[in-house]
Amino acid sequence: MATTIESRIQELGLTLPPIPGAAGSYEHAVLQDNLLHVSGGLSFSEGRSIKGKLGVDVSLEDGQEAARICLLNRLAVIQGAIGSLDRIQRIVSLQGYVQSAPDFVDQPAVINGASDLAIQIFGDAGRHARVALGAAALPLNAAVEISLVVSVRDEA
Amino acid sequence: MATTIESRIQELGLTLPPIPGAAGSYEHAVLQDNLLHVSGGLSFSEGRSIKGKLGVDVSLEDGQEAARICLLNRLAVIQGAIGSLDRIQRIVSLQGYVQSAPDFVDQPAVINGASDLAIQIFGDAGRHARVALGAAALPLNAAVEISLVVSVRDEA
Amino acid sequence: MATTIESRIQELGLTLPPIPGAAGSYEHAVLQDNLLHVSGGLSFSEGRSIKGKLGVDVSLEDGQEAARICLLNRLAVIQGAIGSLDRIQRIVSLQGYVQSAPDFVDQPAVINGASDLAIQIFGDAGRHARVALGAAALPLNAAVEISLVVSVRDEA
Repeated sequence: MATTIESRIQELGLTLPPIPGAAGSYEHAVLQDNLLHVSGGLSFSEGRSIKGKLGVDVSLEDGQEAARICLLNRLAVIQGAIGSLDRIQRIVSLQGYVQSAPDFVDQPAVINGASDLAIQIFGDAGRHARVALGAAALPLNAAVEISLVVSVRDEA
Repeated sequence: MATTIESRIQELGLTLPPIPGAAGSYEHAVLQDNLLHVSGGLSFSEGRSIKGKLGVDVSLEDGQEAARICLLNRLAVIQGAIGSLDRIQRIVSLQGYVQSAPDFVDQPAVINGASDLAIQIFGDAGRHARVALGAAALPLNAAVEISLVVSVRDEA
Repeated sequence: MATTIESRIQELGLTLPPIPGAAGSYEHAVLQDNLLHVSGGLSFSEGRSIKGKLGVDVSLEDGQEAARICLLNRLAVIQGAIGSLDRIQRIVSLQGYVQSAPDFVDQPAVINGASDLAIQIFGDAGRHARVALGAAALPLNAAVEISLVVSVRDEA
């Protein structure tokens, strides 16, 4: 039986990817008190991996898709860490790093790909504080990297 | 009747700007337990907007002013979120992103513009942990972007 | 009498450096509730300071050493802030900023220098959530900058 949030993701025509392999010696997520600290995830999926720099190699539309890919693999990580996305009380903050040419200035529009999707999936609980900025380079040439802090309900 | 912190801001000859428009699909700030997570704010104000790269287009002095502009619009956001700056218990951490030419290395001196002002306004409660780093590019070509985490007292 | 964690550091043939001077108007660390927010530290030590860009001036091996230098000076800061490294309950999150040429994409391997050392020293308590990304420039031309959030036990 699908949970409410998982049903919502299906209704949107989306599926959670498998949890990605870690790119280094870190945990996907650490729960401290009621806050889950989620590691940075890259714009790679089984279907499509979006690499390169906004302003040079990657269009705004592809950058927004890259941000959505990051959010979905972060949700897969959260599901793996706490068992169900229904335990998310609030997406507290989202940090969005956009691999950017020196003159690219539309990082907010890129990261909106993830922010808008979070609100579509979680409603008001998906509304978050945010930082969006341009990185000179990102791991494995990812176009976008996103990390999150989410608050978590006790298990039912 | 002005509050203590608002009086202090006036004494310094400064005024809080209006809350800036959000550059994307995010909240200005999210309160989780007693911590307020404040989104990244840019070096734009009604009076002056400071754009470009430190080391190329923007002088150190203007970079410091850019950091002060960011701090003041973050304080406006905090006032809007929790009603009064007197509810700030501590500025816990400040993240300062400086749009930097590849050879610019004075990010700490730039962000001191915000850090020094925080201490002038809040005294010891304004003393914070900090990260300062160089971004390849920033939203809307801002010279500086600053985000904060502050701890908040219960309402009186 | 050395504490357990300090003994472990000695067994690894390492020594904690003196607490570095602050590069600006910030605190080395701020304790809020049971979380210690540790400021960004640079890849400088008395023995060796590693400067420049990965992908241009700095080899992967030197980048990993730079990350280890950052972690060790962060541990010195934590020891100064809370008295003993034995009070660390968990390294919750680690933010790793790598000064990167635009085409350098091995930030995770660089920051593994710090992550692997954290696990060597603290065991499972050193396993953390992580962000690793490429910065266009870093303070004082540091090759690597690392900040941390750690949870802290009450004093015995």
